[in-house]
Amino acid sequence: MSNWDTFLTPYRQAVEELKVKLRGLREQYKLSSKHTPIEFVTGRVKPVTSILEKAKLKNIALDELSEQMQDIAGVRLVCQFVGDIDTIVELVSSRSDFEVVEARDYIKTKKESGYRSYHMVIKYPVHTIDGEVSVLVEVQIRTMAMNFWATIEHSLNYKYSGEIPENIKKRLQSASEAAFRLDEEMSMIRGEVRDAQQIILQNKENYQRDRERREGG
Amino acid sequence: MSNWDTFLTPYRQAVEELKVKLRGLREQYKLSSKHTPIEFVTGRVKPVTSILEKAKLKNIALDELSEQMQDIAGVRLVCQFVGDIDTIVELVSSRSDFEVVEARDYIKTKKESGYRSYHMVIKYPVHTIDGEVSVLVEVQIRTMAMNFWATIEHSLNYKYSGEIPENIKKRLQSASEAAFRLDEEMSMIRGEVRDAQQIILQNKENYQRDRERREGG
Amino acid sequence: MSNWDTFLTPYRQAVEELKVKLRGLREQYKLSSKHTPIEFVTGRVKPVTSILEKAKLKNIALDELSEQMQDIAGVRLVCQFVGDIDTIVELVSSRSDFEVVEARDYIKTKKESGYRSYHMVIKYPVHTIDGEVSVLVEVQIRTMAMNFWATIEHSLNYKYSGEIPENIKKRLQSASEAAFRLDEEMSMIRGEVRDAQQIILQNKENYQRDRERREGG
Amino acid sequence: MSNWDTFLTPYRQAVEELKVKLRGLREQYKLSSKHTPIEFVTGRVKPVTSILEKAKLKNIALDELSEQMQDIAGVRLVCQFVGDIDTIVELVSSRSDFEVVEARDYIKTKKESGYRSYHMVIKYPVHTIDGEVSVLVEVQIRTMAMNFWATIEHSLNYKYSGEIPENIKKRLQSASEAAFRLDEEMSMIRGEVRDAQQIILQNKENYQRDRERREGG
Repeated sequence: MSNWDTFLTPYRQAVEELKVKLRGLREQYKLSSKHTPIEFVTGRVKPVTSILEKAKLKNIALDELSEQMQDIAGVRLVCQFVGDIDTIVELVSSRSDFEVVEARDYIKTKKESGYRSYHMVIKYPVHTIDGEVSVLVEVQIRTMAMNFWATIEHSLNYKYSGEIPENIKKRLQSASEAAFRLDEEMSMIRGEVRDAQQIILQNKENYQRDRERREGG
Repeated sequence: MSNWDTFLTPYRQAVEELKVKLRGLREQYKLSSKHTPIEFVTGRVKPVTSILEKAKLKNIALDELSEQMQDIAGVRLVCQFVGDIDTIVELVSSRSDFEVVEARDYIKTKKESGYRSYHMVIKYPVHTIDGEVSVLVEVQIRTMAMNFWATIEHSLNYKYSGEIPENIKKRLQSASEAAFRLDEEMSMIRGEVRDAQQIILQNKENYQRDRERREGG
Repeated sequence: MSNWDTFLTPYRQAVEELKVKLRGLREQYKLSSKHTPIEFVTGRVKPVTSILEKAKLKNIALDELSEQMQDIAGVRLVCQFVGDIDTIVELVSSRSDFEVVEARDYIKTKKESGYRSYHMVIKYPVHTIDGEVSVLVEVQIRTMAMNFWATIEHSLNYKYSGEIPENIKKRLQSASEAAFRLDEEMSMIRGEVRDAQQIILQNKENYQRDRERREGG
Repeated sequence: MSNWDTFLTPYRQAVEELKVKLRGLREQYKLSSKHTPIEFVTGRVKPVTSILEKAKLKNIALDELSEQMQDIAGVRLVCQFVGDIDTIVELVSSRSDFEVVEARDYIKTKKESGYRSYHMVIKYPVHTIDGEVSVLVEVQIRTMAMNFWATIEHSLNYKYSGEIPENIKKRLQSASEAAFRLDEEMSMIRGEVRDAQQIILQNKENYQRDRERREGG
């Protein structure tokens, strides 16, 4: 196994396990008659080139990566409403299969760039063929509108190596405001939507229950 | 095999094959140094209960479902920019492994509700253990903002069986306008983002090429 | 959520998580320069009809299913060589993310039918939207030849509701002996194969290491 | 996109599509009340290092790879019984979404090494972002016992670069005979098993039909 493969294996495993665990929560919400605060879950391990660039930029020695770089492994939970974010934060915090070591709320205090998102860093134990190790994983929680904007900003940041020209910065900020307004509009009909989803789910449930009753299940 | 299973099998197969085919295009864009017009691809077969409800509502006889109901199978292509939609429409239209039988542009002329999306209906040939059959599949193409809004509207429509009260209708419309504005803001930085993505991809490419040159590949 | 869905949800989740965890071990072996004792991993939740049939047969009350029926959730690890089974048993036993509550060795003492396999029952903790629960999962470990035979026997057992006629029983037993002989022949070249696999993997590793050295990775 | 990525993209796409198509057939058999001739389907694209080694060994120029190397893309169909192979060959040959360009029967005339398998080469059309291209794909059809043996032989061949020592060759041949005997034993109970599987499936079907009748589906 190469050095990088050896190093990244537990991170890859952590991301795979967390995706299955968090997607499982989503499925359980969909089966219940509750609103689903998780719209989708993604995950990735940072490419080696990006790890090296960031280490250089932030002055992190390669033998301190596992403690100093918190986003080598990352999972992202995307939701429909700003109000869903709190529900997810609680859900994640209450688990005992990993430990939350840090949390940063870029929604209450958004970044100057316009970036909004809730970040947590967790310590996740992985069982490998050589025994148990713990790795840091960054958990990002955001709405679909925040996610859309962040994807776009990420590309531009990369293009200008973090130094986006003033005129484009302004455009990004006004896009960020449009995304924020969309989130606000959506929040205002959230109550309505929650009720609607509950009705859909209860219909399914009744249908299912009828089925089982008739089959004596 | 039950009647419904027999009937739905080719639809399920069509959706699985189309997801692999369209996600393949996305991967090819990501490997090339072009902007990727496809952000993600989803697909589903309409649940039996929904087929029955719609057949009742639209007065479709059950033995005419395969010709009269065009969205029993559905795939959705979601993109970042309004301008990406044309690229996808062309890409889908130029293929010879299925036939486009209809197209409706709800972007140029959005629905009264605020709904925006580009719809195509295709005729897709499936090879089953009993031979070849063709099924209709609805292809929806929309931006992330359109998609977000449409998800919300779908739940509300279901709740009120299509008869959404006036006050909620208005809120939905203003949310639709916010989504529209977000799409417009994003369009204005699209050129910037495309350039940025090209730079990212060319870097990867150069890196890859260097690697292979050194390995004599 | 229907009663059965409520009941089976943590079992489904346990199977999904265990498949990812055990397949992860396989990937780690493939990346290392060791022989891979895991050829493939499968998993399933028992269908409701089969749970009901078994409950009836074994006289298990429905409210005692979670303690009395140990194979509602099941995962299977299939390997190339009889000697791999011990390695897997150790690997599974040494983990701290679940507890082994029972083990039965049908390889040392095969069943009269000809059945060979190593069974473990584990207690696996699952985090759901309603908190943590533990479920029993049956872990089956067998060679490819054992697995092939067991699949066939399973169908026949079902056909005859467990009462396979004498002449077919005999044929099954002689098939079981053929499978046993194949396992023995394979065991005799296991050492050779292990060496071979190590050579393949070391070549890959050297190739990889060279690559990284040249890239300063 | 690097040269190799450009070259291998349509092969990767072909393998993904064929896996979905062939696994779809398996699902259809499982839903029908017929015996399933396909136990599982796998697929892979040959690693670049193996392509280069084989090209050297067989004296194939790199610009003739697409016509001269038939197994750059490969899919494998594994079945329970020798008799299933004919069913699969017919099923594959009767499709119109690709063309069979060659077939070699290493079961009627097994290789000296003990290798048994049915090989077909097909020409498969792929739609890429740059238009349509056709690639060659090798389709291997074999029983589980043949597959088991072939996996082992493959490792040993690699170890000894194709020149396996005489004593190990003999052991491999006697393992091949054991695999052959297992296939024969299994063939003798094939009729029994087919009946059994039909009974299982009909029970499921009746159960399903009852359900739908009661629901007016």
